[in-house]
Amino acid sequence: MSVDPHFQRVALIGFGLIGGSIARAAKLQGLAGEIVTTARSEKTRARVLELGIVDQVVATNAEAVKDADLVILCIPVGACGPVAQEIAAHLKPGAVISDVGSVKGAIVRDMAPHLPKTIHFVPAHPVAGTEHSGPDSGFAELFINRWCILTPPEGTDAAATAHLRAFWAAMGAKVEVMTPDHHDLVLAITSHLPHLIAYTIVGTADELQQVTESEVIKFSAGGFRDFTRIAASDPTMWRDVFLANKEAVLEMLGTFTEDLAKLTRAIRRGDGEALFDHFTRTRAIRRGIVEIGQDSAAADFGRQHGQLDKKPG
Amino acid sequence: MSVDPHFQRVALIGFGLIGGSIARAAKLQGLAGEIVTTARSEKTRARVLELGIVDQVVATNAEAVKDADLVILCIPVGACGPVAQEIAAHLKPGAVISDVGSVKGAIVRDMAPHLPKTIHFVPAHPVAGTEHSGPDSGFAELFINRWCILTPPEGTDAAATAHLRAFWAAMGAKVEVMTPDHHDLVLAITSHLPHLIAYTIVGTADELQQVTESEVIKFSAGGFRDFTRIAASDPTMWRDVFLANKEAVLEMLGTFTEDLAKLTRAIRRGDGEALFDHFTRTRAIRRGIVEIGQDSAAADFGRQHGQLDKKPG
Repeated sequence: MSVDPHFQRVALIGFGLIGGSIARAAKLQGLAGEIVTTARSEKTRARVLELGIVDQVVATNAEAVKDADLVILCIPVGACGPVAQEIAAHLKPGAVISDVGSVKGAIVRDMAPHLPKTIHFVPAHPVAGTEHSGPDSGFAELFINRWCILTPPEGTDAAATAHLRAFWAAMGAKVEVMTPDHHDLVLAITSHLPHLIAYTIVGTADELQQVTESEVIKFSAGGFRDFTRIAASDPTMWRDVFLANKEAVLEMLGTFTEDLAKLTRAIRRGDGEALFDHFTRTRAIRRGIVEIGQDSAAADFGRQHGQLDKKPG
Repeated sequence: MSVDPHFQRVALIGFGLIGGSIARAAKLQGLAGEIVTTARSEKTRARVLELGIVDQVVATNAEAVKDADLVILCIPVGACGPVAQEIAAHLKPGAVISDVGSVKGAIVRDMAPHLPKTIHFVPAHPVAGTEHSGPDSGFAELFINRWCILTPPEGTDAAATAHLRAFWAAMGAKVEVMTPDHHDLVLAITSHLPHLIAYTIVGTADELQQVTESEVIKFSAGGFRDFTRIAASDPTMWRDVFLANKEAVLEMLGTFTEDLAKLTRAIRRGDGEALFDHFTRTRAIRRGIVEIGQDSAAADFGRQHGQLDKKPG
């Protein structure tokens, strides 16, 4: 594919982890003639100005999208519908409108009705993130070797999809196209359910009477800390994800709960064989993830360990 | 504390991740006059010989513990009782006998009755690990800045406990002493329950009809992969942990299941406020873990991201 990834004027609405990373990557790769951004809070806008990454910071969404060839909403899923309504009248004909939300069915449902027929609506979801948020949290390398899923509604102009695909690919992402509904099922199991469970167990630990919070924190290296990273993700974003992808999440939760009940029963009955069989099966999936380069095989996730100096024996 | 961490002859029974790491760290720090080891399989013993880390590899447990001043069982929890029985008659009077099991009540119950009164029994649990196992998986730095919990039964000689504490501290560990029962409650929430849940969700993903395994693997960066590391842990070790710490695990599971039901209900009812409140609370625990240095605050766990080269715009 030799589609030019460049857009003359790119508008980013919202400048958190994802918006800030797009700005940095697009700048570094020369993917935009100019980048204009806005954010809801005065404080964030001031900070973005200070950072000096974008060409222009404006106060309103309407002003940001004016004359933009690519508009990306980098805001929580729940805010996308109202913002689509707000910007609709100001969009440039022929512009590509996109987002970065973790749910796609609800985005299409909430945004599409407001958007004029003259623009190209190509929802997107970069499957990348860290537990940090805010204007300082982004970095240009965030999308490298990560997937970005595009979910153009039926009838979307293929050239617009190809243009946005090239833009994401130039930021280092591997791009896949699927329907909004299938996206929501895939993400329910690979992302939404893991987050819900991590949030739950961290909350459970917090409420225990027999074990203190400081003990939980101290001894977290035994496995618990792996859950805490994702349970530290942005609360607003995740509230919106669960509300917007309710059906798929509840379906996966149903299956998970059944499976947990089976393992619980095996423990209660002392059925070592059932436990061993289950634990052996799950190793294969981990190997798959490491093999395709979506994680590191370095021991302990490649977390830094200290140095031991040799002392005289 | 200026207790000498040195032991003249150290016997390691088992040479997996933990045994192998103790051997490497003790050697590097000069904590042992000599290290003798054994392993159940001929293949592992041959590999340990090849590695050239220890002074002696022997074929039987009885031979390994002969004249040893410190004996550490580095084997699955379920194997510790039978091995204690096997070595009891061969232990040197005054020796310190320990283990590295993730459960401590069952270890005391299974091992203590076999051990002669002439030795000092100080069970231990280094809270450190990676998802790898086998003789090649160990490394000298594994215990640095990690906790090691000692659970001497009532009446244990304080000097023996202090000696073993010094040994672990010299390998870089922070050492804490608590009762076996309290240890088992603390670890049920910080380690055992997280592992059980990780094993469950990875199994759930494996069985889905609507989403393929290759999709789960591809899009795992959305959160799922954080669970797969611990769900790739050694199946035998973990089967034994759940059988041995059944009561505490079932208790924590009960609370977790109730909490999950509450969040599920909030999603079903569209109660965004309840979700937001819960998700906000869990961030604080993550901060605690990063602050005390039990994990890295580097974005995305410090996982490596690629490099973007600046291209002509």
